[in-house]
Amino acid sequence: MSEVPQAAAPEGPGGRLDLEDWSRPVVGVLGGLGPAATSVFLDVLIRATVAGTDQEHLDLLVSQHSTTPDRTAGILEPGAPDPGPVIVRDAVMLQRAGVDLLVLPCNTAHHYARQVEAATTIPLLSIVETTARAAVQRAQGEPVAVFATEGNIHAEVYQDAIRAHGGTPLVPDRTVQDDINHLIYGQVKAGAPVDTALFDACTDRMIARGASVAVLGCTELSVVYDQHGYRGDQRLVDSLTELARITVLRAGKELTELFR
Amino acid sequence: MSEVPQAAAPEGPGGRLDLEDWSRPVVGVLGGLGPAATSVFLDVLIRATVAGTDQEHLDLLVSQHSTTPDRTAGILEPGAPDPGPVIVRDAVMLQRAGVDLLVLPCNTAHHYARQVEAATTIPLLSIVETTARAAVQRAQGEPVAVFATEGNIHAEVYQDAIRAHGGTPLVPDRTVQDDINHLIYGQVKAGAPVDTALFDACTDRMIARGASVAVLGCTELSVVYDQHGYRGDQRLVDSLTELARITVLRAGKELTELFR
Repeated sequence: MSEVPQAAAPEGPGGRLDLEDWSRPVVGVLGGLGPAATSVFLDVLIRATVAGTDQEHLDLLVSQHSTTPDRTAGILEPGAPDPGPVIVRDAVMLQRAGVDLLVLPCNTAHHYARQVEAATTIPLLSIVETTARAAVQRAQGEPVAVFATEGNIHAEVYQDAIRAHGGTPLVPDRTVQDDINHLIYGQVKAGAPVDTALFDACTDRMIARGASVAVLGCTELSVVYDQHGYRGDQRLVDSLTELARITVLRAGKELTELFR
Repeated sequence: MSEVPQAAAPEGPGGRLDLEDWSRPVVGVLGGLGPAATSVFLDVLIRATVAGTDQEHLDLLVSQHSTTPDRTAGILEPGAPDPGPVIVRDAVMLQRAGVDLLVLPCNTAHHYARQVEAATTIPLLSIVETTARAAVQRAQGEPVAVFATEGNIHAEVYQDAIRAHGGTPLVPDRTVQDDINHLIYGQVKAGAPVDTALFDACTDRMIARGASVAVLGCTELSVVYDQHGYRGDQRLVDSLTELARITVLRAGKELTELFR
């Protein structure tokens, strides 16, 4: 994390950037991690916001930085390119550009959230914190299953957050994790048809092991949730949905019925 | 168009913004016109790009400026707020931030393209020019039907561009335009189910009047095209698809089979 610039206060009138005629708060989206997750996040955000006209939607500045080094490799493989400084530089850039708060629509990249917070002075709405809080609340003392990438599970991103909110995380066994990996990499990321029976079986097996809810802690699983009719399923707590919810509310807007 | 700042060259190392570790060319997306069109454009762009990993996708900086004043009102209603200076300021901001080219994924806002070009020194890829060119080429001397908003038809945005490329524009009569308006405002913008039989009937009536192809010159119609199985229909030339195609190619990437 060398040579990462610190953010200065955004320029006012006469400064280098001009978000003056934008509606406050302007939300900075640290995107591209990956690009499809950011595209789905923008779509979910629109559908989550009560708006009768274009002008009632949020103003966002989005860094769709697709070429950011791979996050799972950065966590798991020694010597792999480090995405941390890249994500931090983009966060500093968005603050300099004048955004009022930041969101990072990627669960695995949340591993780098503290570096972002150390280099900026505006709030970073955490996809993991808000999802873990919602899941622990809905679980009512029962264990919370965690569906996520190997990198995310290995870094204990969700397990730590669920414990911090007083909950009990339940991690998939090898068989279920292999099925989750197949859904993420072999189907959604590959653009192949999604096997919803396999997804249902993953949830059923975690419920059978004692979980009362399952966190979808990976934006590929958010795509399954969004596009295959799972919205409203009370056993699932979807991370991209929770991030959209907190973003809309923090920006002072009202949530549509489907997202309340 | 008073007090619009002129763009300076983007800052290098040590400057106020930092896109140094981004992959060139960085595409600046003048978004939010409306927000849903931008979200669909980002999605189509991802599906149009040959990429085996996140890192092979384009790097984009997106101004999702939803609160930009209404474009159709700006064109049709005397005294309505003028979106022109707002769009120009955002274009200047994106150039200052260091993007290499601009795209504006909105057909109606193309009315303001010349103001953007006058205030910036980087290329603006035109959704209208590229779509008109593709349509005239495919029409092979036959008339080109124009499906667009009333504001766009009134400003003759597509009619002029089709003529400039040597083609013959064919504008819907009152009945067909009313049906197009209903599809755009009463269905897609309203989030209501889309009547594909009505959309087919619009195309059929224009073909019966002599058109060989129809331009979908409104991003709401691009949503119908994308989400209701019209991709590959040789009678339709979709503007958002054509903008995605030219963006991918100008950025030095390869088009996926579905977008070739």
